[in-house]
Amino acid sequence: MAAGINTVWVLVAGALVFFMEGGFAALEAGLVRQKNTINIMMKVFMDCTVGVIGYWAIGFGLMFGLDRLGIIGINGFFLSSQLKHLGLPVPPAAFWFFQAAFAVAAISIVSGAVAERMKFSAYIIFAFVGTALIYAVSGHWVWDAGGWLNQLGMRDFAGSAVVHAAGGWAALAAVMLLGPRIGKYNRDGTPNVLPANNLPLAAMGAFILWFGWFGFNPGSTLSGLNLNIATIAMNTEMAAAAGGVVSTLYTMRRYGKADPSMTINGVLAGLVAITAGCAYVSAAGAVAIGAVAGWLVVWGVAFFDRLRLDDPVGALAVHGLGGTFGAMAVGLFALKGGLFYGGGLHLLGVQILGTLAVSVWAFSASYGLFALLKRTVGIRVSAHEEMEGLDVGEHGVPAYSHGATSPAFLPNPLHEHPGEALPTPGME
Amino acid sequence: MAAGINTVWVLVAGALVFFMEGGFAALEAGLVRQKNTINIMMKVFMDCTVGVIGYWAIGFGLMFGLDRLGIIGINGFFLSSQLKHLGLPVPPAAFWFFQAAFAVAAISIVSGAVAERMKFSAYIIFAFVGTALIYAVSGHWVWDAGGWLNQLGMRDFAGSAVVHAAGGWAALAAVMLLGPRIGKYNRDGTPNVLPANNLPLAAMGAFILWFGWFGFNPGSTLSGLNLNIATIAMNTEMAAAAGGVVSTLYTMRRYGKADPSMTINGVLAGLVAITAGCAYVSAAGAVAIGAVAGWLVVWGVAFFDRLRLDDPVGALAVHGLGGTFGAMAVGLFALKGGLFYGGGLHLLGVQILGTLAVSVWAFSASYGLFALLKRTVGIRVSAHEEMEGLDVGEHGVPAYSHGATSPAFLPNPLHEHPGEALPTPGME
Amino acid sequence: MAAGINTVWVLVAGALVFFMEGGFAALEAGLVRQKNTINIMMKVFMDCTVGVIGYWAIGFGLMFGLDRLGIIGINGFFLSSQLKHLGLPVPPAAFWFFQAAFAVAAISIVSGAVAERMKFSAYIIFAFVGTALIYAVSGHWVWDAGGWLNQLGMRDFAGSAVVHAAGGWAALAAVMLLGPRIGKYNRDGTPNVLPANNLPLAAMGAFILWFGWFGFNPGSTLSGLNLNIATIAMNTEMAAAAGGVVSTLYTMRRYGKADPSMTINGVLAGLVAITAGCAYVSAAGAVAIGAVAGWLVVWGVAFFDRLRLDDPVGALAVHGLGGTFGAMAVGLFALKGGLFYGGGLHLLGVQILGTLAVSVWAFSASYGLFALLKRTVGIRVSAHEEMEGLDVGEHGVPAYSHGATSPAFLPNPLHEHPGEALPTPGME
Repeated sequence: MAAGINTVWVLVAGALVFFMEGGFAALEAGLVRQKNTINIMMKVFMDCTVGVIGYWAIGFGLMFGLDRLGIIGINGFFLSSQLKHLGLPVPPAAFWFFQAAFAVAAISIVSGAVAERMKFSAYIIFAFVGTALIYAVSGHWVWDAGGWLNQLGMRDFAGSAVVHAAGGWAALAAVMLLGPRIGKYNRDGTPNVLPANNLPLAAMGAFILWFGWFGFNPGSTLSGLNLNIATIAMNTEMAAAAGGVVSTLYTMRRYGKADPSMTINGVLAGLVAITAGCAYVSAAGAVAIGAVAGWLVVWGVAFFDRLRLDDPVGALAVHGLGGTFGAMAVGLFALKGGLFYGGGLHLLGVQILGTLAVSVWAFSASYGLFALLKRTVGIRVSAHEEMEGLDVGEHGVPAYSHGATSPAFLPNPLHEHPGEALPTPGME
Repeated sequence: MAAGINTVWVLVAGALVFFMEGGFAALEAGLVRQKNTINIMMKVFMDCTVGVIGYWAIGFGLMFGLDRLGIIGINGFFLSSQLKHLGLPVPPAAFWFFQAAFAVAAISIVSGAVAERMKFSAYIIFAFVGTALIYAVSGHWVWDAGGWLNQLGMRDFAGSAVVHAAGGWAALAAVMLLGPRIGKYNRDGTPNVLPANNLPLAAMGAFILWFGWFGFNPGSTLSGLNLNIATIAMNTEMAAAAGGVVSTLYTMRRYGKADPSMTINGVLAGLVAITAGCAYVSAAGAVAIGAVAGWLVVWGVAFFDRLRLDDPVGALAVHGLGGTFGAMAVGLFALKGGLFYGGGLHLLGVQILGTLAVSVWAFSASYGLFALLKRTVGIRVSAHEEMEGLDVGEHGVPAYSHGATSPAFLPNPLHEHPGEALPTPGME
Repeated sequence: MAAGINTVWVLVAGALVFFMEGGFAALEAGLVRQKNTINIMMKVFMDCTVGVIGYWAIGFGLMFGLDRLGIIGINGFFLSSQLKHLGLPVPPAAFWFFQAAFAVAAISIVSGAVAERMKFSAYIIFAFVGTALIYAVSGHWVWDAGGWLNQLGMRDFAGSAVVHAAGGWAALAAVMLLGPRIGKYNRDGTPNVLPANNLPLAAMGAFILWFGWFGFNPGSTLSGLNLNIATIAMNTEMAAAAGGVVSTLYTMRRYGKADPSMTINGVLAGLVAITAGCAYVSAAGAVAIGAVAGWLVVWGVAFFDRLRLDDPVGALAVHGLGGTFGAMAVGLFALKGGLFYGGGLHLLGVQILGTLAVSVWAFSASYGLFALLKRTVGIRVSAHEEMEGLDVGEHGVPAYSHGATSPAFLPNPLHEHPGEALPTPGME
């Protein structure tokens, strides 16, 4: 019966985390320009189709297979083993289901940062390698009992480092190699506004992500019998609220207006930052972590822009900075072992080391992959396609069509002979 | 183990209720004019960030702290006590999580009614005071064991009165003090159509709210072991269906066409009305309650319009009338004690008294708050800003941007030097 | 306590399945033309209001009442019996709640295929008869212990045949009787593109449907203590991923571009196809089933188009072909009894027979109903209304309105005197 409760809990939580893909899709599609809307959603579909296959075939085994030297797992590929060494409170299939949703979330972070200019075919390859290799290896270090960072005592409850910092710094590598969008920066280095096409869609994405986080964080207990899930859910909500309050008020004070994308990103940064510590900190600690993250994201967006690192959705600030801060903050705010609660510097040191290790791995491995892709299949669409938009360029259709007589953008596989003139109503 | 099941249930239900914020945001954004779309969503973000902080700091203690004279609770602020007097079947953090989502829902009702003209800064103050004080006090009367209405025997299972009537009549106070939107009424009192900008978005909001209600109502048992949750879920579905059927058919008969906003509001009114009685009535009773609510909302929207009470989304009819009717209808339809089942007039009297008390409090307290805000910070944007739209006026950006070369609406904190001309493609 | 866990599980799963209505609404609204957007959503609202009432009053009793001759159930109408013969692990209300969501899903499949030309009033009648009769009868055959296909040993775990093939072939009957949209086919039989108006909305619909499927399939155990739910969830995810990968790569290879509607439909076809076998096959089997379905849907959309069967959203291919294939594939891939695992031809034969029986019934009964409707109330809007769009024609309002001064499309029941000129700002 205990296994039943745990399995119900993990499956519901896993479904919530998978639904976050819809949140990523809406958030990113809302923040880019209209001509690239469906392309970014298609990239998210690749995350949760190609990425799932990659994680099933290879990634899960590397991450949770039998440990070798604290570096990687070596069995469980294609779910081919019983995984008894994990001592799971739920069936292996439930654990896989939950973990696969995390792997997919990690690479979806990248999809936003590379929006509006990355080739779709190259992205498919990234989606596979991202879950099959990059995410899985550093995940093993922290979350497998034999992983070297786990052995050192690193605590990253639901993945501020494992998922978010890794995703954020992987995105940084991609952004560096891709370069900024055409027209984003002037010759003197000053940035231009490439306005978000649909802020309500982005807001809906944030609500879906927030909802999904109530699976992401408390589900990571893997047990519905662990009553700590209540505190985790509460801390998650607290940090999100604090992040949104601070980013909104700070933006109002600094710029005179409440910027919607900053409110959205403040909430998300609060969620990202509490992900590591949600099981270890007090409600007040959660508010403090969320508040700092809410400030950090406003600062961070401007910071990356000054460096001419063009991130259309703010993923570097939200996930990179938010995740890095959140994972390290466990060393400050943990009720057991945190510096602010008399725990000294040991845990803080471990958290800093571990977060840096995960971040450096994710950045380096992604840099290598994107550099290889750049030299082979290419990672950036042509300037002509970028100006025309990736929706038509990569997918043959605009995201939005307002009339019955829109010209058909070739090739549309739904139809054999597109583009003919429509008959006038009287003809039929 | 029982605590585990209950906690899983309450957290899942609480997450569903929090997700209703996404539903409110979409519903309201869809029903207003395009120029005010992101502003209304930003107000909902304030509900679930500022409102959460207010409920944590003050509201929860007032509502569920140790009772003083049946009027208010006096401890538990900042979740600072163990709350043993509540005798909860779940950890206090789970109870807080669930209740916070309700508090946020109550004030979100107001956001829709004040759309398209209320100042964002004043709304932030309302969001705080609304959860910290207004909602919490009348909530204590009904839902705390020591509350005076609870002592009288009032039964409002999941809050037709506590959440919906309170929210609806608080909105009425705000609407009266704000006045109608520019252009809504002609000098002879006749109304104009200020058309909904995005009915599909509004419909999606309704689907999300409906989904969330399956947490709202059955979750209010606080226990997954109480098998009554099955009946509650069934009754919730029945009343929603009946509300939608009646509002649609009645509208078709009266006006010759099925109005989408009436179908949506009919479903929502059915849900609002069954919220009080979902645990006490039969399936047939739920159908009857939903059907009356579906008729009531069509009548009510026209009624408030005749009074020149300008409510852009129909919140007064859906939540005010629907909630008031639903709470009172417990006195008619309750299988134990309801007038229609031989229970006499006692319960009906208590329900009427209690619903009126909650409504009068919520209206009066909100009227006081909005009157104070009106004299101090002001509650209404300038006529110029109202005509321009609150999206640009309050947030510096339009909700939708269709081209790459849209002018930048200052100030956009994402960028330091917005508004420069974009280079032509060949320049890069 | 076991009943508590089971009930929590079934209610959460049921809520997820009901939320799929939001997914159907978004998917279909995104894939049609803008002028028919809110009409299609209104039809989905009729599914989950009128359809729920029909299933409550009649359908549920026909499907799960006391068996008569293996053909129909004969009690339980209006939930008027205890249903002890079912031996349920949950309260009857929970079982009804879950099953009602399935009935509604089945008829929602039809709403997409008849989009852009079917009369709203006729659709309301279909929504009632669809859940009250058509779906319920064949559902009894397979899912009631006394049903003749159940007795033969047919295995359709969560309804590839019962829900999806039935819905898909019911849609075929409707499409045949309705005829294609004006302008869809030229006189030489070649098709024109009537482009999807909002692919991001369609994509969000797919994400919601995918999310809901994690209730649809594992919830069908009716028990959270059956640890097979973990495998079912995993298989569901696998098949969806495989369907999306194959439809995307196959489309890229065949047409040179990745078509968004094909990626979406590939994912959905994978989900539809695994619905029957999710509890019986291995992960590799799920990948294989999903992959075939992903290919099948691309082939099928073109196939139906060649036959001039005009299906605006691809429902015939996704649900009709996907469901038929998925139900039959149990006979190939089932670990116990499947041909590929040494089980011989018996199960395959039963699956083929049963799937054909369900399909023929759903097609024939729907054909009869739509033929009757065609001769009486009529099933198709006028050519003028079709050109103008069903949003204005059936509902009096456009789905989208971009300005404050849009003319009012009569009659809008929200207001008594619509259409007057708005005063200029200075007047108020």
